[in-house]
Amino acid sequence: MTVPADLGPPPPLPAGGLRVLPLGGLGAIGRNMTVFEAEGRLLIVDCGVLFPEADQPGVDLILPDFTPIADRLDDVEAIVLTHGHEDHIGGVPYLLRLKPDIPLVGSRFTLALIEAKLREHRIEPYSLTVREGQAEQLGPFGCEFFAVNHSIPDALAVAIRTAAGTVLHTGDFKMDQLPLDGRLTDLGGFHRIGREGVDLLLSDSTNAEVPGFVTAEREIGPVLDDLFRNATKRIIVASFASHVHRVQQVLDAAHAHGRRVAFVGRSMVRNMGVARDLKLLRIPEGLVVSLDDAASLPPERVVFMSTGSQGEPMSALGRMASRDHRHITIEPGDTIILASSLVPGNESAVYRVINGLARWGANVIHKEVAKVHVSGHAPAGELLYLLNAVRPRNFMPVHGEWRHLQAHARLAGQTGVPDDRIVLCADGDVVDLVDGVARITGHVENHYVYVDGLAVGDVGETALTERRILGDEGFIAVTVVVDEATGKVVGGPFVAARGFADDPTAFDPVLPLIEQALDSAAADGVIEPRQLQQTVRRTVGRWVSDTYRRRPMIVPTVLEV
Amino acid sequence: MTVPADLGPPPPLPAGGLRVLPLGGLGAIGRNMTVFEAEGRLLIVDCGVLFPEADQPGVDLILPDFTPIADRLDDVEAIVLTHGHEDHIGGVPYLLRLKPDIPLVGSRFTLALIEAKLREHRIEPYSLTVREGQAEQLGPFGCEFFAVNHSIPDALAVAIRTAAGTVLHTGDFKMDQLPLDGRLTDLGGFHRIGREGVDLLLSDSTNAEVPGFVTAEREIGPVLDDLFRNATKRIIVASFASHVHRVQQVLDAAHAHGRRVAFVGRSMVRNMGVARDLKLLRIPEGLVVSLDDAASLPPERVVFMSTGSQGEPMSALGRMASRDHRHITIEPGDTIILASSLVPGNESAVYRVINGLARWGANVIHKEVAKVHVSGHAPAGELLYLLNAVRPRNFMPVHGEWRHLQAHARLAGQTGVPDDRIVLCADGDVVDLVDGVARITGHVENHYVYVDGLAVGDVGETALTERRILGDEGFIAVTVVVDEATGKVVGGPFVAARGFADDPTAFDPVLPLIEQALDSAAADGVIEPRQLQQTVRRTVGRWVSDTYRRRPMIVPTVLEV
Repeated sequence: MTVPADLGPPPPLPAGGLRVLPLGGLGAIGRNMTVFEAEGRLLIVDCGVLFPEADQPGVDLILPDFTPIADRLDDVEAIVLTHGHEDHIGGVPYLLRLKPDIPLVGSRFTLALIEAKLREHRIEPYSLTVREGQAEQLGPFGCEFFAVNHSIPDALAVAIRTAAGTVLHTGDFKMDQLPLDGRLTDLGGFHRIGREGVDLLLSDSTNAEVPGFVTAEREIGPVLDDLFRNATKRIIVASFASHVHRVQQVLDAAHAHGRRVAFVGRSMVRNMGVARDLKLLRIPEGLVVSLDDAASLPPERVVFMSTGSQGEPMSALGRMASRDHRHITIEPGDTIILASSLVPGNESAVYRVINGLARWGANVIHKEVAKVHVSGHAPAGELLYLLNAVRPRNFMPVHGEWRHLQAHARLAGQTGVPDDRIVLCADGDVVDLVDGVARITGHVENHYVYVDGLAVGDVGETALTERRILGDEGFIAVTVVVDEATGKVVGGPFVAARGFADDPTAFDPVLPLIEQALDSAAADGVIEPRQLQQTVRRTVGRWVSDTYRRRPMIVPTVLEV
Repeated sequence: MTVPADLGPPPPLPAGGLRVLPLGGLGAIGRNMTVFEAEGRLLIVDCGVLFPEADQPGVDLILPDFTPIADRLDDVEAIVLTHGHEDHIGGVPYLLRLKPDIPLVGSRFTLALIEAKLREHRIEPYSLTVREGQAEQLGPFGCEFFAVNHSIPDALAVAIRTAAGTVLHTGDFKMDQLPLDGRLTDLGGFHRIGREGVDLLLSDSTNAEVPGFVTAEREIGPVLDDLFRNATKRIIVASFASHVHRVQQVLDAAHAHGRRVAFVGRSMVRNMGVARDLKLLRIPEGLVVSLDDAASLPPERVVFMSTGSQGEPMSALGRMASRDHRHITIEPGDTIILASSLVPGNESAVYRVINGLARWGANVIHKEVAKVHVSGHAPAGELLYLLNAVRPRNFMPVHGEWRHLQAHARLAGQTGVPDDRIVLCADGDVVDLVDGVARITGHVENHYVYVDGLAVGDVGETALTERRILGDEGFIAVTVVVDEATGKVVGGPFVAARGFADDPTAFDPVLPLIEQALDSAAADGVIEPRQLQQTVRRTVGRWVSDTYRRRPMIVPTVLEV
C-alpha cells in the first residue's frame, strides 16, 4: 500500500487506455464523483455533495472541484447516478449550471429525486431511465446496470466496458439477503461478470472496518411492533426522508396498531409522494392523513413520520425538541423513535435534540438503546463476498475516509488481489488502466468547493481560517484617524470588539498603551498608515496575550483625513 | 416524573432538614458538584470541570457556578472527592482560589492527582486521606466511604449520615466482577447500609440507557495479546492518562512479547509515576525506558504508551498523525491502538487523527473494530443491582444528560421506588430532605462559568453568541469619519471584512450604496453618529442579504473629528 507522495500532472493517456479520475469520495464520506475517460470521451459516475464539519464553519455544502473537466464538458457522454442520496446526486445542479444538456442516466426513483431537486434550480434535464439488467452504449462506454440493495430503493451498480477493459463500480450497496422489496443485490450478475473478467473494481468502503454482516432491514419490524404496542400516547418516528423501506415498516406497524400516520417535514412529504407514485411505498387506504387531521386525533391513534433524525435544529424534530413546532407539542409519555443512523459529526446535535425531547417527558428510543436502525453499507463480511465473486485484476476502494479505504484494501489483499494491483488513492489522483494494469500516474489539483448562501466558491481556505479564529477568539478592532500631512492623531483610538468578553470596560487599560505607542511612533517620524497599523496591532496583541493568554484577531485601521 | 417548571428561590431549610444543591453534573456529563447542607454547615462532594462543545467556541473549561455558596465558604466543612477524574476534581483549584484552606478528603490516588494539579496553581491544600471502610465525622456530616470500581483506581462512594437521614452518593462506578486489582465495588456494604435505611440515593446515570452489564476490564488483555502477537513494527497505544489498569494490561502484553515501553505525553508520565509510587501500577524491572532509548530500539521491540486518545491535535498522538512529533514518525506497518472511549463530541477529532495515521500506512485499531475498551460506568443491569441493594426511600439520578437521568429514573421506578420519590432535577434545583421525603423546593441561578486563557467568567453568553456568528459568517466592518459640527463625511467609507469571502474586491459594489445612503441621511439632516451607524448597518445588511443570502456581523463605526 502507498503513502502520500508528491505527484505531478499525469502524462497523456496512452491510446487504448482508460483513465479514472476521482473528484470526490476518497478521504471523506460524501461528494462522490468519478470521471472515466476513454477515446477522448468522458463518463461521470455520481456527482454528490459533502456536508461540512465543525472546521468548515458557516458552509452549507461542499462540492467536487469541477476544474479538471470544466473545459471538457462537451466531451461528457452522460452522468450515471447510482442512487438518489445527496452525497451522490447533490452536486448535479451545480454541474448542470455549467452545461444543462449533459444527459442524466439512472433508475426511476433516482431520476425522480434529482428531477425534483433540479426543478428548484429551474433546470429541466435530459434524462435516460435505466433498470437492472439493462445495457446502454454511451459513446465508447458500454454500460450494464446491476441491482444493488441499499438504504434507498432502486440503487444500481454499473459495469463499464471499454477498449481498455471492464470496470465495475458498485455504488453504495449492502447484501441484505431478505430485503423488504425482494430486490437482492445481484451477486449472480457479479459472479458472471467476474467470470468474463473485471479489470478494475471500484467498491464502497464505508463499512470496511466493521466486521461481519448487516442485520436484515426487516428485523426492525418486530422492534417497531413492540415499541408501538407499549406506547400509550403519540408516536413520533424520525428517519432519513429517502429511506422508503424504513418508512414502510413504520406504516405497517401503525396500521397493525390502529394508528394513522402524518408525514412531517418538506422532504419527507415530497419523497414519500414520489415513492407512492412509483409504487415503491404501499400505503393502506386511509392510513395517511394530513398534519391538521392528525393533530385532532387522540394521542394513542397517531404516528408522526418526521425528518430531523440528524439533529438539525430547524428540522421538524429539532423544532419539537425546542417546543417551537407549529403543530406538535411534546407531552410527557410521548414516544419518539430515531430510526436512523448517527452520521459522524452530528452526535452532539442529535443528543441535544434527544435531551430536549426527554426534558419534556418524552420517551426517546434511538439506535444505541434498541435495534431501530441497520446500516445501508456492506461490512467486511459482505465485501469479501463481493471481492470473491468479482475476482478483479485491479482494485480501487472508494467511498470512505482513509481508514475505510485502507481497511478495504486489506480485505482485497486477503482475497488474493496482489498488493501492487491495489490502488489506494486520494481525490484528484489519476489512475490509468493500460494493458490490464491500473496505476496512479499523476495528480490534478483538487479543492473543496464551498457553497455558502447563494455563492459558490467565494469562501475559500482564507475565509475559513479567519472564521475559525474569529469563532474561537473574537476580534478587537482599533480605529485611529490621523492627519494626512502630519500623521498626527486627530481621532480615536476607538476600540470595538466582538466575541472577546462580555465586559465592555475590558479595553479601558489598553487605550493609553495605544496612545503612547502612537506618540512614540510619531516621535520617530512614522506617519505611514501601514506602519501605524502595525504599531497598533503589536501593542494590542502584546497586551491581550500578557493579560489574557488569548489571541483574538486584531484589526487595526488607520484612516487619513 | 417532572417537566421543567419555573421555580423561585427556595424557602429556608426547616430545622433538622438536609438540603441538596447540585451545582453541576445534571443535564451534561461533567462539572460534577453537589453541595449538602445541614445545621448551617456545608459539605461539598466533587468539584469538576466540563469540557466545552462546538457551541462553546474558544472556551478551555467550564466550571460550576460557585455563586450560591460564595459568601458561605466559611461554612464548608470539606470537599469530598470521589475519584481523580477531571470532571470530578478539575474545578477544585478555582474553588480553592476563593478559600485555600477548605480541606480536601479523598483516597490516596485521588489526592495525589489533585495535589499535582494544585501545585501548578501554586496552592498547597489541607487534605485528609481516607480509604474504603473508613468513617469520618465532618461537622454534622457523618461520612462513611465504600470501595467502588471505575476506570481509575481508588474510587470511593460516600454515605453521609445527618440528623435528617442517610444519603448515599455513589460517585462514578461500575461493578466489574473480576477487577484487575481485585478491588470490587462494595455491594455487600451497600446491602448493609440499605438495611440500615438510605433516605436518599444519588447514583451515576452515565450508562443508564445502555442495557446489560459491562465486559470485564481483564477481557481486554487477550485482545491486546493478540494484537501484540501480530504486530511486526512499532506499537503505539493511546489511552486516558489516568486509566492505570488499562496501562497495566499494555505493560503486561509488552512484557509477554519482549517489547519495552516508553510513556509519551506529560500527563501520562506524571500519572504513571504517581501510580507506580502508590504501588497501583506494577512495572517489571527494566520494562519502562525513556523516549530517547525507545527511539533507538528496533521497531518490533518497542511500545509507546501515549496520551491523545480523544483526538486532541496538540497531544502526542495528534502530533504523530500530522507528522509533527519530535521523536516518533509513523511508518507503514506500525500498529496503533486507541484503547479508549470516544467521548461524545470528540468523534470528528478522533477520526481525523485515525485517518491521519492510516494515511501514513499505520494499522489503526479502535473500539469500533476490536474490543480494546470497556466503559467505566455501570449500565442498566448493574444499576438495578445497586438499586435493589440500597432500596432507597428517595432517589435522585445524577451525572448525566437529561436522557440518562430520565432512563435512570425509569429503572428506579421499575425496582419499586414510588414515582413521587424520584427527584429528577437540573443544576441549581434545590432538593430538601425533610421528614424522610425529598422534594424540589426551589431553584438558584446556575450559569456555565467559562475559563478562557487566564480569565474566569469574563466570557459569557454574549461573547459566545458573537463568536458563533463570527465563526459561521465572519464580519464586515465599515468606518466613516464625519465632521463633528456638520456631520459631513470627511473620511471613508472604509470597509474591512474577515471570514466573509476570499476575494478582496467583493465589497466594491457596496461602497457607492453606503455613500448614497449617507448622502441622503445628510440631506434629511441626520448627523448623529449613532443614527448614521444604523444607516450604514441597514445598507450593508440589505446588500449582503440580497447578494449572498448571508448574515455576517456588521460593525459600523462613525467617528467624529
